[in-house]
Amino acid sequence: MAADAEAVDDPTAGLPRMDDIVSLCARRGFIWQSSEIYGGINGFWDYGPLGVELKNNLKALWWQRVVRGRDDVEGLDSSIIAHPRTWEASGHVEHFSDPLVDCRACKKRMRADQLDDAGPCPARQGTSEHDWTPARNFNLMLKTFVGAQEDAAATAFLRAETCQSIFLDFKRVRESARQRLPFGIAQIGKAFRNEINPRNFTFRSREFEQAELEFFCHISEREKWFEHWLGERLAFHHELGLKETRLRVRPHRPDELAHYAHAAADIEFLFPFGWQEIEGVHDRGDWDLRRHSEFSGKDLTITDEETKERFHPCVIETSVGIDRSCLALLANAYEEEKLPDGETRALLRLPLAVAPVKVAVLPLAKKLAEPAQRIASELRRHWSVFYDESGNIGRRYRRQDEVGTPFCITYDFDSESDARVTVRERDSMTQERIPVDGLRAYLQDRLETAR
Amino acid sequence: MAADAEAVDDPTAGLPRMDDIVSLCARRGFIWQSSEIYGGINGFWDYGPLGVELKNNLKALWWQRVVRGRDDVEGLDSSIIAHPRTWEASGHVEHFSDPLVDCRACKKRMRADQLDDAGPCPARQGTSEHDWTPARNFNLMLKTFVGAQEDAAATAFLRAETCQSIFLDFKRVRESARQRLPFGIAQIGKAFRNEINPRNFTFRSREFEQAELEFFCHISEREKWFEHWLGERLAFHHELGLKETRLRVRPHRPDELAHYAHAAADIEFLFPFGWQEIEGVHDRGDWDLRRHSEFSGKDLTITDEETKERFHPCVIETSVGIDRSCLALLANAYEEEKLPDGETRALLRLPLAVAPVKVAVLPLAKKLAEPAQRIASELRRHWSVFYDESGNIGRRYRRQDEVGTPFCITYDFDSESDARVTVRERDSMTQERIPVDGLRAYLQDRLETAR
Repeated sequence: MAADAEAVDDPTAGLPRMDDIVSLCARRGFIWQSSEIYGGINGFWDYGPLGVELKNNLKALWWQRVVRGRDDVEGLDSSIIAHPRTWEASGHVEHFSDPLVDCRACKKRMRADQLDDAGPCPARQGTSEHDWTPARNFNLMLKTFVGAQEDAAATAFLRAETCQSIFLDFKRVRESARQRLPFGIAQIGKAFRNEINPRNFTFRSREFEQAELEFFCHISEREKWFEHWLGERLAFHHELGLKETRLRVRPHRPDELAHYAHAAADIEFLFPFGWQEIEGVHDRGDWDLRRHSEFSGKDLTITDEETKERFHPCVIETSVGIDRSCLALLANAYEEEKLPDGETRALLRLPLAVAPVKVAVLPLAKKLAEPAQRIASELRRHWSVFYDESGNIGRRYRRQDEVGTPFCITYDFDSESDARVTVRERDSMTQERIPVDGLRAYLQDRLETAR
Repeated sequence: MAADAEAVDDPTAGLPRMDDIVSLCARRGFIWQSSEIYGGINGFWDYGPLGVELKNNLKALWWQRVVRGRDDVEGLDSSIIAHPRTWEASGHVEHFSDPLVDCRACKKRMRADQLDDAGPCPARQGTSEHDWTPARNFNLMLKTFVGAQEDAAATAFLRAETCQSIFLDFKRVRESARQRLPFGIAQIGKAFRNEINPRNFTFRSREFEQAELEFFCHISEREKWFEHWLGERLAFHHELGLKETRLRVRPHRPDELAHYAHAAADIEFLFPFGWQEIEGVHDRGDWDLRRHSEFSGKDLTITDEETKERFHPCVIETSVGIDRSCLALLANAYEEEKLPDGETRALLRLPLAVAPVKVAVLPLAKKLAEPAQRIASELRRHWSVFYDESGNIGRRYRRQDEVGTPFCITYDFDSESDARVTVRERDSMTQERIPVDGLRAYLQDRLETAR
């Protein structure tokens, strides 16, 4: 925590450092770079045993909230590779590019709008005097070839966003699910962008996961649904425990809007590297369905049963980055807490619903392993459980604090006679003595209330 | 059902036809071809509102059974694109190919080992006399370029199987999760193969989902763990309700084994198109870890604490196709049942745990919509619920039978006075009168027992 004058204006002052979060993630099995043993591959990340549970919990909450919990939203899981015409209609083939420059001296390649991050030029004695080429457009879609030829006719793309398939499947979903306006279609899935400079850990990567909703309505209701979904999504992030002071809505200025967009707002989180978008809410008008109608020759209009008006519905989109949201959860939860005894503990104050491990079961001594393992096996039928019998109990508590495990159950020598165990709560470190046969109900009560 | 002599030897005689299953899947929103409005893209499929629930239920059951429910298996979610050296070490760059031939007359391209399926040659008046070129090897990995160049150095591959990243991350997972042999690492994710002739609906496609476990053990325990996992996986498919008579284990003959494999067995299901593999269980020896050690220069050995023996662990793999397993579930569940009144109903006898919709709520008349919707909203907090108020009640029941919904709740005129509803069970069509405020417990009891 820098105490100098500059820090006053820096909103990230006092926040934990990214280095500490990145290091925790790799060391404890949340997230690390893909293909580490081969030196890594830039912009690709693997989620380890704890990371995959965190991510799956987040996705399940989103799915329950946006899809299963509503009767006006249908789920979808479309293929990553779609017909290449999709990306002509969407405008990606023509427009989805970044301006790119090369340094003639050191060969470094950068986005023309991010030259401040280029660092010194090694070919020029470490001065910052790069010799940049003029900017040229570089398409960000990852290309592949489907079928046995490698030519233009076989070229396909890894989707750059999950939403396009929702537009392609609009009619099929509406008819098979017998939905009427207003209604939405939502999906979670991988998308790919050939970012020139991936950075900020998992924040800007080349392979990432999106959770997108496209909500279709009549144009007369666009403002109403835009406000509804912006509010819904903001509430979701609040309920995930993201701190009030680190969450804000930034409406787009008119000059920032895509040419087809009517309104847009970013939900931003204050990361250690500054305010950054974790979710976008967009009023896309009828652009998407109209374009796919034109390019496919298929009728994607709706006819109003009463007025007989035929129209392409208006689309309100909510698009959240699952990786960004996971990173926000971790950055939000990470704390180094000074304890009364002068020691410091690192902990993740993750909300119960997303914590990767719900319960750790710890026998006080190895000779108590058997009954402790029985408890762990029983609880494992319902929750993600970690069993740990090695090291002193204080260190084992610390290890669980550091990965955000909300409850530690200690089986000690008294447990043998009184059939009770100690349940220690992560945040308050308070301990309670609970009967073994009441454990499931006790935990269920705590964990269900948290949802 | 063909009653002729040939049918006696045809194990698929009497099974529902694929056409009926494919048609149901598209019409009711389980699965349809990707990019339909652009004429489709061969070998790619989209899961609709019901399909995504079925698939997610299946994945959740696998995850609970293989990962969360055990203390000796860790989960993982690695990137689809890994460092390209991965696929050199694994042997895919060199060997992962099919023999391919072209017809010089009609230009048709086929796998040399599937020429029986080629059909007539349109360039030769529909005779079957194709003019095939000699077979050449065609690599099945989908290729892309990462970074701003399209050259050899930038070439990467979409993974052809999810297991390779497990080997890459073996050391990191073991250390971060503090596991000791024997233990496993498991993941679910997309993989891609550029199949020359995708076919049999979702059975052989170009983009598909795998659920793979790599279980690491000392070589002295290889047989034991191979048997354990073969038994475990077979039990899983049985518990999913796949009929005894349609499930079998086919051990590989010695001449079928990969050069590094010690033992292998396929779990096969009797589809309408014949016996086909849905899962493979393989003893891969130490091939994978040894190869990645060699290619990366990183030490992936384990040292036995007692004997001080240093070795690459032996790997037992279980690899199930999620799409194939979904298709088996659908094919297994589909029935056309003759009713006492002479009518026929189509139904999916899906096990409760995988049924995409658990409960349908149906008001007997539109004027009863409001209380029925209240019930639906309440139940939707816990399960996937469908609400339907249009059409006569018999037709609404049939619609739910056809998609495998286990329970239909009818709110009728008596419900207003006696606060009870009728619960109709899919398979038996029996009806029971249940108090509205006991509904949740009633359903929870039925649905939990089914897990």
